[in-house]
Amino acid sequence: MSAERKAVVLLSGGLDSVTAAAIARKDGFDLYALTFNYGQRHTWEIAAAEKLAVLLNVKEHKIVSLDLTAFGGSALTSAMLVPKERTLEAMAGEIPVTYVPARNTIFLSVALGWAEVLGASDIFIGVNAIDYSGYPDCRPEFIHAFEAMANVATKAGVQGVRTAIHTPLIAMTKADIIRCGTDLGVNYSQTHSCYDPSPIGESCGQCDACLLRLKGFTDAGLTDPIAYIRRAGRAAHS
Amino acid sequence: MSAERKAVVLLSGGLDSVTAAAIARKDGFDLYALTFNYGQRHTWEIAAAEKLAVLLNVKEHKIVSLDLTAFGGSALTSAMLVPKERTLEAMAGEIPVTYVPARNTIFLSVALGWAEVLGASDIFIGVNAIDYSGYPDCRPEFIHAFEAMANVATKAGVQGVRTAIHTPLIAMTKADIIRCGTDLGVNYSQTHSCYDPSPIGESCGQCDACLLRLKGFTDAGLTDPIAYIRRAGRAAHS
Repeated sequence: MSAERKAVVLLSGGLDSVTAAAIARKDGFDLYALTFNYGQRHTWEIAAAEKLAVLLNVKEHKIVSLDLTAFGGSALTSAMLVPKERTLEAMAGEIPVTYVPARNTIFLSVALGWAEVLGASDIFIGVNAIDYSGYPDCRPEFIHAFEAMANVATKAGVQGVRTAIHTPLIAMTKADIIRCGTDLGVNYSQTHSCYDPSPIGESCGQCDACLLRLKGFTDAGLTDPIAYIRRAGRAAHS
Repeated sequence: MSAERKAVVLLSGGLDSVTAAAIARKDGFDLYALTFNYGQRHTWEIAAAEKLAVLLNVKEHKIVSLDLTAFGGSALTSAMLVPKERTLEAMAGEIPVTYVPARNTIFLSVALGWAEVLGASDIFIGVNAIDYSGYPDCRPEFIHAFEAMANVATKAGVQGVRTAIHTPLIAMTKADIIRCGTDLGVNYSQTHSCYDPSPIGESCGQCDACLLRLKGFTDAGLTDPIAYIRRAGRAAHS
């Protein structure tokens, strides 16, 4: 496999995106990591992304600022409260207020632009449609529609280069993701998932992101190495 | 027609986008204008957008910063030279270095997010595939693919709201656009099109944007009211 294959990987600093990046690396790609500072309340994830980019030995890491608090509309970018202690059934049943309108569309669009400049035709995103919060832009039909659009959007596309949006985690359970990443040497102690961390970066243990993460480690028979204010909730056992 | 209909309009500060916005207003929409400060060398267009937003009586005008110079890859966002004195045949034949990778994809994605927060299901963009520089993301097939993607990307889409991407100029000549805007009261003296203006904001008269604009005014039998360093080029007669 050539060392010249480049992939743009969306790296949020969370558990999923670092695992998707590790899979891209295992598949022989040189990694170009892209992180967004979009005004998310959990800016700890950006610091995590910087550490993970080093551990992943990426060729380049760009942190792009785009202030989505200008619009709000989400508990992650405004003063709305982050929901706590939701059951998995509740997560499956409704799209929560932590949904950020068009976030993955925006992130993938910027990734598409960078990929074209780099001459890369592969983009990795760690979306997951099994253990997730019901976000519409994590589903396969969104990814397929984005890929179709991408291939008529760019100069590269017009010239016949096909851009692929890789979603290696989309059909995996959270436990599968954690097992896969562990096998690939991912250091999950450096990841950040919590939507509502304490001032010193401890995870709340009660938001959707924490509950799904804790359940994933439990189901994988592993212990989550990060610090929590409390490990609680119906879905979590540690 | 209800006064409650909201449309997000991409307003660059150029001739096309203000005309598209004027059409949206004529069609009865309340306007929510969106402008990007993306590191374009012709920042004069942002000042123009601010004046035009006032003239259009928009409900709200947001200027979003997103630094595309981080990637470069375009004469508009890097130190590359802007091509001058290209013929219309040359413009039709190749995508020039002023193409900004994935720009309209990125802009429409952010517009989609804002529209969802506003509860708007209509987005206007002044793309044109007749008198244009051959940019792939100005073509109908791109717009259709983006619209299809948008409708599976958002919570609103999942809930059955159809988002429409309106491109009222897409099949018009530049002269038609100028006639239409003039009929709608657009003040073209406040617009900025040039890719390579002088330090005091005069248009070069020689880049693709100037040449297409000057030809449009000539073909419409009108005089372009803005200041040029020189009015020259094969395509322009003033």
